[in-house]
Amino acid sequence: MHSFIPPDRLLLGPGPSNVPPRVLAALARPTIGHLDPRFVAMMDEVKALLQRTFRTRNRLTLPISAPGSAGMEACFVNLVEPGDTVIVCRNGVFGGRMRENVIRVGAECVLVEDAFGQPVDPAKAEAALKANPGAKALAFVHAETSTGARSDAELLCRLAREHGALSIVDSVTGLGGIPVEVDAWGADAVYSGSQKCLSAPPGLSPVSFSERALDVLRQRRAPVQSWFLDLGLVMAYWSGDGGRAYHHTAPINMLYALHEALLILHEEGLEASWARHQATHLRLCDALAAIGLDLLVPEHARLPQLNTVRIPEGVDDAGTRRRLLGEFGIEIGAGLGELAGKVWRIGLMGHGSRAEHVDRVVGALSTVLDR
Amino acid sequence: MHSFIPPDRLLLGPGPSNVPPRVLAALARPTIGHLDPRFVAMMDEVKALLQRTFRTRNRLTLPISAPGSAGMEACFVNLVEPGDTVIVCRNGVFGGRMRENVIRVGAECVLVEDAFGQPVDPAKAEAALKANPGAKALAFVHAETSTGARSDAELLCRLAREHGALSIVDSVTGLGGIPVEVDAWGADAVYSGSQKCLSAPPGLSPVSFSERALDVLRQRRAPVQSWFLDLGLVMAYWSGDGGRAYHHTAPINMLYALHEALLILHEEGLEASWARHQATHLRLCDALAAIGLDLLVPEHARLPQLNTVRIPEGVDDAGTRRRLLGEFGIEIGAGLGELAGKVWRIGLMGHGSRAEHVDRVVGALSTVLDR
Repeated sequence: MHSFIPPDRLLLGPGPSNVPPRVLAALARPTIGHLDPRFVAMMDEVKALLQRTFRTRNRLTLPISAPGSAGMEACFVNLVEPGDTVIVCRNGVFGGRMRENVIRVGAECVLVEDAFGQPVDPAKAEAALKANPGAKALAFVHAETSTGARSDAELLCRLAREHGALSIVDSVTGLGGIPVEVDAWGADAVYSGSQKCLSAPPGLSPVSFSERALDVLRQRRAPVQSWFLDLGLVMAYWSGDGGRAYHHTAPINMLYALHEALLILHEEGLEASWARHQATHLRLCDALAAIGLDLLVPEHARLPQLNTVRIPEGVDDAGTRRRLLGEFGIEIGAGLGELAGKVWRIGLMGHGSRAEHVDRVVGALSTVLDR
Repeated sequence: MHSFIPPDRLLLGPGPSNVPPRVLAALARPTIGHLDPRFVAMMDEVKALLQRTFRTRNRLTLPISAPGSAGMEACFVNLVEPGDTVIVCRNGVFGGRMRENVIRVGAECVLVEDAFGQPVDPAKAEAALKANPGAKALAFVHAETSTGARSDAELLCRLAREHGALSIVDSVTGLGGIPVEVDAWGADAVYSGSQKCLSAPPGLSPVSFSERALDVLRQRRAPVQSWFLDLGLVMAYWSGDGGRAYHHTAPINMLYALHEALLILHEEGLEASWARHQATHLRLCDALAAIGLDLLVPEHARLPQLNTVRIPEGVDDAGTRRRLLGEFGIEIGAGLGELAGKVWRIGLMGHGSRAEHVDRVVGALSTVLDR
């Protein structure tokens, strides 16, 4: 066995996206201690940068030391208790995973279903809230990584609040690429991932909890079933009040990388990043149309950073992706769940959302499909 | 805010330890996709390297995508169900954390207590096994990071097996620095961490489960309460059978780093690494004795990689550590739990276990203490 030298890849799948050299350089800086005062000061900057990114003043805004699926689990295990009812909107694979989390907490899950590729229908969510008074939370995916559909998070959070339910929002693929307005929406628990529009490596899951969510956490009857994800304990390490209580060893170098990635994002500016994602997306739509390829998601609900392309009749799904990877060094994503074999997923996320990447992937697709 | 440039530190605390340049270079290589065939081939190498490191042929041998405390939790949530009885040996902070995990799974915890700084007393563990027939598991800490005590893992695993209980072994600080013989011991579930004697950055937790543990996992009545840590699902991504099922996005760059760190370990050889840790430890013991400092742990139970030094009467604990860090760039660890203020912890782990580090830290201590 030898040192692993990864091949050159243009990552245009559903994430990870390409990590810029500045972030890789930060990642490789010497490891220091997780209680070192210099490191602790950097943690404070990471929190402040995440607050700016989530557009929130929430005190509990920090990166969970594990990938996005652990961020999802952190939201459910901290806010939901056995016997609670949670309404989960499922319009893709990640809504299904939310349901799995609710069940494993011992709560009852009420499903609101929409077709894969469609946004969550707020009327159905509202009907479910009315039919289930006392529901603990309404959970939905803002940016469905499996389908490319964007749901109206502002409206869904408002509906939850009007019915006395918490909102739990998956924006793993949203944050940095489209508006995520935690305070303006009044969202209660939002989680994201480092490896999508933030362009850091995978392995961290930024989360933000509202004061209302913190109250629920404080008033729990039972302890949080996960020790590792118990945000009461995690906060004692991340907050400055009365010194840092050791909880687990933070992933030091990954936090260097997230810090640098957030600096880059805010050097560009959040709004500028959103606009760039949108412009690149429109270029992709035009280029795909020019070679006769259609998108799955209706125009009004498309995520600019994740584009699901219908695989034309008779085309070899896996063979096409294999040729893109092998001959062009381009990774695109396969369909997931019920969309397997039916769509490709083209991600234009963070650092990767650039006109030349659109030209490269559509050029390569056009060659492989001979269009 | 600016890019974070960490200060120069010699990390001689309880972990993280200094990460060698080759591992940092691996960490910084370009991120590729978690389903990329080249990455998947590297994962197979990581598994094989971990099997060699744990001295096991266990199929379920892989790194959990989160720090050691998540590795601990993975063992308990996968193997223990509500209503089970688990015997936990507590001779330090991490035994206490095991108890916390058992409770949060909804199982009954029987404690076997030994003083902080002492190894687990096998006679007490055996008595507890006899008094609790049908106990699901005996859990203990092989290498207590909070005290520097080493327990007789081989004997404790045998006692567990003789009484029909699984053994759950914390070797976060052990692996790579002292013998961990998963197959020879017949250990059922062992977890470790990347940032101690493996000299990779913190953020990954290698685990290994025996076939007996896999049987228990397969025969569970209830689903694993954690979706993220459900090893049935995690294995479907890590094992080659029938293709890789997407579970969560693996922390790609951290796995590059672990791969490189394991290569370095096996270039030196496991036995050579153990011998080097022992030799460096003996040098430290001599040097500390020469300036009149005592170790907490009795000689026969000392971990060579983690040395707990009694703080002399009248010496300012925090002030001493602050001076070591500020004036000498050396981090040592504070006491944890009931040992806070009573001991320092000097780690000589992995890449950090070198004669010159002993000389530097004892020289600095001698200057600060004016001995």
